[in-house]
Amino acid sequence: MPHDHSEHEQTPEQLEVQFEQLSLLESKFEDAEAEVIRKADAIKAPLYKERTEFVAKVPHFWSLVFEQCPQEVENFIQPTDSEVFAECLESLEVTRFEVDDQPRSFSLKFGFSENEWFSDKTLEKKFWYRHTKDWDGLVSEPVKINWKKGKDLTGGLTDAAVKLHEARKNITDRKKEMALPEYKDLSNKIETSADASVSFFGLFAFVSGYRWVSAEESAEARKKDQEQLAKLKAGEKIEEDDEEDEDEDPQDYQETEVFPGGDEVATIIAEDMWPNALGYYKAHFEMDGEFDDEDLSELDVDMDEDEDDSAEEVDIRALVGKGKKGEEPPSKKQRKA
Amino acid sequence: MPHDHSEHEQTPEQLEVQFEQLSLLESKFEDAEAEVIRKADAIKAPLYKERTEFVAKVPHFWSLVFEQCPQEVENFIQPTDSEVFAECLESLEVTRFEVDDQPRSFSLKFGFSENEWFSDKTLEKKFWYRHTKDWDGLVSEPVKINWKKGKDLTGGLTDAAVKLHEARKNITDRKKEMALPEYKDLSNKIETSADASVSFFGLFAFVSGYRWVSAEESAEARKKDQEQLAKLKAGEKIEEDDEEDEDEDPQDYQETEVFPGGDEVATIIAEDMWPNALGYYKAHFEMDGEFDDEDLSELDVDMDEDEDDSAEEVDIRALVGKGKKGEEPPSKKQRKA
Repeated sequence: MPHDHSEHEQTPEQLEVQFEQLSLLESKFEDAEAEVIRKADAIKAPLYKERTEFVAKVPHFWSLVFEQCPQEVENFIQPTDSEVFAECLESLEVTRFEVDDQPRSFSLKFGFSENEWFSDKTLEKKFWYRHTKDWDGLVSEPVKINWKKGKDLTGGLTDAAVKLHEARKNITDRKKEMALPEYKDLSNKIETSADASVSFFGLFAFVSGYRWVSAEESAEARKKDQEQLAKLKAGEKIEEDDEEDEDEDPQDYQETEVFPGGDEVATIIAEDMWPNALGYYKAHFEMDGEFDDEDLSELDVDMDEDEDDSAEEVDIRALVGKGKKGEEPPSKKQRKA
Repeated sequence: MPHDHSEHEQTPEQLEVQFEQLSLLESKFEDAEAEVIRKADAIKAPLYKERTEFVAKVPHFWSLVFEQCPQEVENFIQPTDSEVFAECLESLEVTRFEVDDQPRSFSLKFGFSENEWFSDKTLEKKFWYRHTKDWDGLVSEPVKINWKKGKDLTGGLTDAAVKLHEARKNITDRKKEMALPEYKDLSNKIETSADASVSFFGLFAFVSGYRWVSAEESAEARKKDQEQLAKLKAGEKIEEDDEEDEDEDPQDYQETEVFPGGDEVATIIAEDMWPNALGYYKAHFEMDGEFDDEDLSELDVDMDEDEDDSAEEVDIRALVGKGKKGEEPPSKKQRKA
């Protein structure tokens, strides 16, 4: 190596100071980011309202958005899920339901018409941004789906997740939790269905990419964090946390997670698909110019397959059934950035 | 199909109205998004300044950030690029240089110490968000890198891109442009090097994922767009654009694009790595608790390989040379969300 890095070497004490400064700065960035989310929410709220009114008049808007959704979400949408969306998905609403306190929390509210799969008219999945001393991220409570007889697309996983979540509500001891019959039932169900791809509706059973974190635990961890930061700001020495580290293994908790990666999928829906829904919808319509008559005559659900659609995938556009199969498909247009 | 969708069928006239409303609404969303970027920029500016001061005291901050960067960027970093970063990358600065007019434009400014590869102390790559009637997105001018003799990591691609860009400056005719010797030279170089992975520094040669769009063309397209939107708002009928569509094939322009996907890579740097740099830096240090003494003694450049590091990759952490190889690597910690 032509350069000698030894002049850059830092002592453990220097590193300690450096990491304290870094933590302080990081907390300021987190506050700023929260403020940005709040501002964005306020700026866009009236537009989302306007869009909801517009979309209500557009047939199949959200199923067509899901048809064009990013790969990371599409990977989780099974052929039957596409069928459900095409048949009965009527609305989607994303709200930051505790925007003042924690703007990173959000809810996905799906609205459905009468259908053959479940009796629910709305399914709302709330994601709370919560803290522990080692982690922060989104957690959620499993949502009961009232599946019609023989129609449960998750093979009992959502029901089992709801039951476990109820059963462990007042249990803080991890060993007792793992001894619950509901725990065994859910982990067995997950294990036996590991080879099959879980339905998108398994997302409603999602709990956490780490483990369940209650509002109380989160509030306490946040308070501790803020006390430590206040000390750092005041230039005080941080006291060591003498508590024994509990022998926690978050991997272990994933034994009962029906939908690993559910927080990421939900985040893409909330932060990409929700704000950019008009663009995803429009991507179905291949237009050369924005308001070209020739294109408008072709302004219909596009019948040609996307290049990366897998063969087994259900063609929502065919289900939506706009006809015009005889027409020459409009030429592909480069997707707008 | 149990449900009949025919009640949803829309006439071409209804669709036309629908798409006009959609375009109007979309333009409002674009304005709102621009406002959000401006607000975020203003909120975070003082923090970025504070971070720059902090980072100046942290050895190898940015090379360690690049070491931990998202897969979509990492894919473009070759072993020699990692070596360059570890040896001489001293700073990175992202600025929204025309935030009032077009907040989506940004610049990446890399600072380097004296090194064996090139004589430049800073390399600044500007990305302008521009419009045509069919497309909008980021375009950039190739940046000259003053490679030292025999040290050009791009095998002449950056030089050739700069030369072509200069040569075509006053040419508007595409056929004349394609007849330029500089055009043939660059497209030949790209074709013959197609099998080899291009250096990350090829990013400095990036022009566009579509084609080069000048400030003038963009201003004109934007003006037309706004005139049409104003008419839509006023409820007026949009006039047809009678201009013949020029026989443009953006694919064709990619013959002289040194770094396809460069706009996406730059966007990830600007919108993910830049705001979250402290987190990426911290990800090197595996800590169980934030301020734990035991961890602080291990607070050093982590020597264990990431699971997905490819075998050929240069280990920056080894280049950085913090030693301590004999130590037990700290246990992996779940990455913070």
